[in-house]
Amino acid sequence: MKVAVFRKEHFNAAHRLNNPKWTEEENREVFGKCNNPNFHGHNYELIVKVTGETDPDTGYVMDMKVLSDLIKERVLDRFDHKNLNLDTKEFSNLNPTAENIAVVIFNLLRGEIDPDKELKIKLYETERNYVEYPA
Amino acid sequence: MKVAVFRKEHFNAAHRLNNPKWTEEENREVFGKCNNPNFHGHNYELIVKVTGETDPDTGYVMDMKVLSDLIKERVLDRFDHKNLNLDTKEFSNLNPTAENIAVVIFNLLRGEIDPDKELKIKLYETERNYVEYPA
Amino acid sequence: MKVAVFRKEHFNAAHRLNNPKWTEEENREVFGKCNNPNFHGHNYELIVKVTGETDPDTGYVMDMKVLSDLIKERVLDRFDHKNLNLDTKEFSNLNPTAENIAVVIFNLLRGEIDPDKELKIKLYETERNYVEYPA
Amino acid sequence: MKVAVFRKEHFNAAHRLNNPKWTEEENREVFGKCNNPNFHGHNYELIVKVTGETDPDTGYVMDMKVLSDLIKERVLDRFDHKNLNLDTKEFSNLNPTAENIAVVIFNLLRGEIDPDKELKIKLYETERNYVEYPA
Amino acid sequence: MKVAVFRKEHFNAAHRLNNPKWTEEENREVFGKCNNPNFHGHNYELIVKVTGETDPDTGYVMDMKVLSDLIKERVLDRFDHKNLNLDTKEFSNLNPTAENIAVVIFNLLRGEIDPDKELKIKLYETERNYVEYPA
Amino acid sequence: MKVAVFRKEHFNAAHRLNNPKWTEEENREVFGKCNNPNFHGHNYELIVKVTGETDPDTGYVMDMKVLSDLIKERVLDRFDHKNLNLDTKEFSNLNPTAENIAVVIFNLLRGEIDPDKELKIKLYETERNYVEYPA
Repeated sequence: MKVAVFRKEHFNAAHRLNNPKWTEEENREVFGKCNNPNFHGHNYELIVKVTGETDPDTGYVMDMKVLSDLIKERVLDRFDHKNLNLDTKEFSNLNPTAENIAVVIFNLLRGEIDPDKELKIKLYETERNYVEYPA
Repeated sequence: MKVAVFRKEHFNAAHRLNNPKWTEEENREVFGKCNNPNFHGHNYELIVKVTGETDPDTGYVMDMKVLSDLIKERVLDRFDHKNLNLDTKEFSNLNPTAENIAVVIFNLLRGEIDPDKELKIKLYETERNYVEYPA
Repeated sequence: MKVAVFRKEHFNAAHRLNNPKWTEEENREVFGKCNNPNFHGHNYELIVKVTGETDPDTGYVMDMKVLSDLIKERVLDRFDHKNLNLDTKEFSNLNPTAENIAVVIFNLLRGEIDPDKELKIKLYETERNYVEYPA
Repeated sequence: MKVAVFRKEHFNAAHRLNNPKWTEEENREVFGKCNNPNFHGHNYELIVKVTGETDPDTGYVMDMKVLSDLIKERVLDRFDHKNLNLDTKEFSNLNPTAENIAVVIFNLLRGEIDPDKELKIKLYETERNYVEYPA
Repeated sequence: MKVAVFRKEHFNAAHRLNNPKWTEEENREVFGKCNNPNFHGHNYELIVKVTGETDPDTGYVMDMKVLSDLIKERVLDRFDHKNLNLDTKEFSNLNPTAENIAVVIFNLLRGEIDPDKELKIKLYETERNYVEYPA
Repeated sequence: MKVAVFRKEHFNAAHRLNNPKWTEEENREVFGKCNNPNFHGHNYELIVKVTGETDPDTGYVMDMKVLSDLIKERVLDRFDHKNLNLDTKEFSNLNPTAENIAVVIFNLLRGEIDPDKELKIKLYETERNYVEYPA
């Protein structure tokens, strides 16, 4: 049977929810306070789950130091203390909802993790709102 | 691949565990302190998980404001600051264990959520005891 | 300089806020949902702080096992899984607000702790509402 | 002896640390990533502490519902889902460090709280960085 | 549909990660600080999940008091305040990584739980590193 | 009025409580499981509080990055992933109780912090046992 390992990291970012195909009024109606033109922000808590066989020599599914460094390099250096809409190419044309951020992070990490291992992303936008991908 | 979104809410309630088909002694033996005739209570932490496709226009699986309002209307207004045994019809004939409360909350919400989306309930009775339905 | 030590415990209880000198209407107006006649309840988190000199032989201000046993005996056995209004003599004539519960717990413990040591009580009624005595 | 009561609330905001009297280079050197011109953001957790005598009729130092409404009206409606630098007059000429935000919140609330009661503000910028005013 | 119940417990232990088939240098390179010859330690948070049908008479999947006692007897009495490498037979020849500890705990409990019920172990080594078995 | 700033860090360590002037039996009686000869361990959560005037140019009482680096250099590099009794000179002749560890950390940091600023240490040995120095 397989074991899952989890590593928790965090980053802080500004964002704004907006659909450029809609009018200002439609955006305000759908996204409410999250549509504020000057942005707002969050402390994002990110949990990366990797599932696979335990290596009999190390007793590890994956070295947590390696996973932590990978998250830092691929995700935190890109999004931490940034404005997701203005400072990143990933969200220049994609609405930075928690759902979309989780999918983007999955795609940034998927190629770096052994393909025999499953990957899952959990992202807390606030303590009360969070998402998981794939579900 | 689908995304899951989670919304955390809470309510405070009194309850008592008791099976009316049993003697007082049997109830005390099975339910211990939770059988106290004058009730005790909890801060219930409720996590509602909805799984589905992300809407390409909004980037949302479901608007968290809509989900939060729905939980308030269907669950919190019914159970918050109530005595589950005495003040609610749901538990007038059903033992209000965490397991049963989770199933009742699932049923209260299931009809209100898009049938294409999966629904799951997590309910913390205390920080150390909690349940999930469906498992 | 002195050191403070803290021990965290918890108990679950039902209660109702009510002033018997007031009309039902006045009570509902002041205490709102907390006045529900059939009670509601909480997971109370209790933090007991004891401040004093460190004993040079043990390196302890106070043995946490002793403090934990004392809290169990004097507080938890009295209030855990109880209805504060109906099952305890302490609140038969005293409104069980968090403020009053903290003062009662202070008085239950004060005589059991070395008088050279300071005692302070922190009581969480919910994660968002809590009190401290003495302030 | 007095009792202290605490109410926890939260708001999400974007901000940027910057001193307009300094060069861009000086600002980058002092404020690092927090100087990002396009802002970043946080989930601010706010704890308001009020200390005073318990009212013998209510058992309250202060009604937590009243305090919560006051915080909402004076603080959250002003700062939640806002850009502190661009959307608020309080920080149009004041660097929005956690220290300064705590002092501003103290001043917004001080006049609304009974002058016989002490007021203290705790503000979490992240789980690992927080401030208290007055100390 | 089935319900899952969760019980959270904890234990404190010392351990050292080491593979006796490797040189000291290889061990230091792979396990880093966790290879410290004199050990280090953790507060392990353990969550045991049991999934099954709810008993119609009790409203329980499993009595949490029974599950808690079982965890105490089979797991905590064995590992709490121990050196996993030196004081336990389970890890005398097995590297005490979080992955391996979770598998060992699963095996210690599996025979004690009704075979119709599923068992899953979650083990937090730190707040930021944790594992789940089976995945 | 002054502002206090707090920085939270953590380290993992093994330790054993023991008084070399006592017999083995006396040590077992006083320190119980914490006297285990082969050590046990904890995830220590450390909160460093610095109180002073806010610098009008930065809006900082103290740069949290500087404080974090200082804690790393003076405390974490010394104690993280170590056996406090065997690997450190600070506890070679001092019983590593939470009280004593907090005093040692205070002394390691005091000389590095501006003497006009107050310093206070909070140390969590577990979520339920913690200390503060000076009290």
